[in-house]
Amino acid sequence: MIVGILGGGQLGRLLAQAGYSLGLRFRVLDLSAEAPAGQLAELMVADFNDTDALKRFAKGLDVVTYEFENVPVDSARFLNRRVRVYPAARALEAAQDRIAEKKFFQVLGIPTPPFTAVESWDDLESALDELGVPAVLKTRRFGYDGKGQYVLRNPEDAARAWHSLGGVPLILEGFVPFAREVSIIGVRGRRGETAFYPIIQNHHEDGMLRSSLAPAPEASAELQREAEVFAGKALDALGYVGVLAIEFFEVEGHLIANEMAPRVHNSGHWTIEGAETSQFENHLRAIMGWPLGPTAVVGCSGMLNLIGALPDAGELLSIPGAHLHLYGKSPRPNRKLGHLTIRANDRQLRDAGLAKAGKLVGDEGWGEGATRRRGEGKKGE
Amino acid sequence: MIVGILGGGQLGRLLAQAGYSLGLRFRVLDLSAEAPAGQLAELMVADFNDTDALKRFAKGLDVVTYEFENVPVDSARFLNRRVRVYPAARALEAAQDRIAEKKFFQVLGIPTPPFTAVESWDDLESALDELGVPAVLKTRRFGYDGKGQYVLRNPEDAARAWHSLGGVPLILEGFVPFAREVSIIGVRGRRGETAFYPIIQNHHEDGMLRSSLAPAPEASAELQREAEVFAGKALDALGYVGVLAIEFFEVEGHLIANEMAPRVHNSGHWTIEGAETSQFENHLRAIMGWPLGPTAVVGCSGMLNLIGALPDAGELLSIPGAHLHLYGKSPRPNRKLGHLTIRANDRQLRDAGLAKAGKLVGDEGWGEGATRRRGEGKKGE
Repeated sequence: MIVGILGGGQLGRLLAQAGYSLGLRFRVLDLSAEAPAGQLAELMVADFNDTDALKRFAKGLDVVTYEFENVPVDSARFLNRRVRVYPAARALEAAQDRIAEKKFFQVLGIPTPPFTAVESWDDLESALDELGVPAVLKTRRFGYDGKGQYVLRNPEDAARAWHSLGGVPLILEGFVPFAREVSIIGVRGRRGETAFYPIIQNHHEDGMLRSSLAPAPEASAELQREAEVFAGKALDALGYVGVLAIEFFEVEGHLIANEMAPRVHNSGHWTIEGAETSQFENHLRAIMGWPLGPTAVVGCSGMLNLIGALPDAGELLSIPGAHLHLYGKSPRPNRKLGHLTIRANDRQLRDAGLAKAGKLVGDEGWGEGATRRRGEGKKGE
Repeated sequence: MIVGILGGGQLGRLLAQAGYSLGLRFRVLDLSAEAPAGQLAELMVADFNDTDALKRFAKGLDVVTYEFENVPVDSARFLNRRVRVYPAARALEAAQDRIAEKKFFQVLGIPTPPFTAVESWDDLESALDELGVPAVLKTRRFGYDGKGQYVLRNPEDAARAWHSLGGVPLILEGFVPFAREVSIIGVRGRRGETAFYPIIQNHHEDGMLRSSLAPAPEASAELQREAEVFAGKALDALGYVGVLAIEFFEVEGHLIANEMAPRVHNSGHWTIEGAETSQFENHLRAIMGWPLGPTAVVGCSGMLNLIGALPDAGELLSIPGAHLHLYGKSPRPNRKLGHLTIRANDRQLRDAGLAKAGKLVGDEGWGEGATRRRGEGKKGE
């Protein structure tokens, strides 16, 4: 069985690594001949809008999936006339536009921050009047890792924000005074069965995910249930097949949806070692129509992203409980080069490992998720 | 960093799967264009004796290792003049000939079954007089998975055994009335540091490994220590770098060495899920000069080989605690197509999973290791 993956980044690479164990083969479509998944799978280099290339790509595939949400919806639909595509194109559609995404949440009764569409300078001025500061101006589409957004702390920031982002459709999001950021990874199979991992506490800086703790410390059963209800509604509403991630702000013990990703997600990387079945394997099980695997944790985990530069591999590997995952990319500022998961049988051991790793990685904020107050959202992790 | 692997079977494939996480790339040399590792790594098809091919293979590699022990020793030496080869060629030399192997063990004070070299029919007759029956006649070289051996239950079996195997150098091994078969997986780093996994109980049929339980049930601390002392002596004597497996017979609470494999080993496949660091990652850490990873178990595990035909993947995946590993091979009688590891937090859960899996796989002998009495050895697992 051959699985096609649209996108050959680290998520595609991690999917293939998991999928070889299931006897699957992979064909990856990416714009770049240097795509990390190409080191371990057949790589086709083409534009996602090139229908001739899509036809060749589809040939002989059993199923197609994607590893990033900015695949053109029309391309997903085009492929779906030739081969099954999971998750369906409408999940892409809902996730690609921040306004559509928030309206999708609202229809399902999932709370979101206040927001207003911004098409012009006048729109921005009246949106600011309505929502106040702080607020975040974001492009409606194609934002990721903090790109395409601007935090307005004072009304005077509006001009600079407009100068930086204006000219494409925007959204202004009101500030949410959150206690922390959390996410849930859910998976839905072809027959509608669902499974959810424990909610994860995430720590972002400059709009990029830096670290995750799983399970999220001191998360109540009520919070977990709320996250599962919200994710379950989204999965069912989309007739979704595969892994879906939703990021939330936690405010006074309740969840406000920030955004969703119709794919495996950076905040779920700890599941490779820290859960009975990884998010990557569960995504593949779902799209292949196989039974979902158990999502129970194995001990507790913390994940640190390796961004921009790599510490010495030997030093990272000598940390107790450390599991290194490199993506085969060359270093570049703000580039995600890999991640390190610390898995241990108790929190103290896990935190001791994270403390050591945080020093090497230059990120000592992994424990701060619960005390930070930041309004920025981000796309594409 | 690019690692060259001599041999592209499932062991090479599993090495590459583990190694991509460490940021490594792989080039595999194999006789067959269908080699399973070729699905996920660069594959060079050539004879292991073809020095021109070996030169091309070595170009740009950082280190070379092998995944089966019948690599020609001269080829390993040839490569070692161009690039580091781990483990060193002398480990191959010691493991390729059953007489050299047993003498190696004896020099280190590691007990072996009684044995005699057999070059002629006269040799066989006098060896049988000396060792009695039952005994096992084996080719000195190139045996694997029970091939190249013949069990003599009566003196009258000698003629048929000679007819079947005569013409190449042979060894007659005396029968050892063992309680069970166990193995140990050890690893030694470039600076001589060593680590050992808990001993494993193995169940063979027709000379092929069918299943393993890890840790071996009711193994005393003394037995573990004895295995570690023996493996440690072998590792040090060979100046070994990488993973070495030794298979033993357990007789009255002590160990008698059957054979060794200078590579990752089928009886260590459970370490992918069942240990803090898998044997594959530890082999790569060792040959790269990185610190060895912890060998502690995570719960307890049982591994069943999938031989000859594959049960339905969905059924296998629905077994609690099951982790499937397929090798991308087409089914053929007596061919190892994959393995299934059941990992659980306690023995009862593990055994419940193994019972279900055993029925699907057609192997219900996984719990019998401790009660079987078989004299056959095997090579190449």
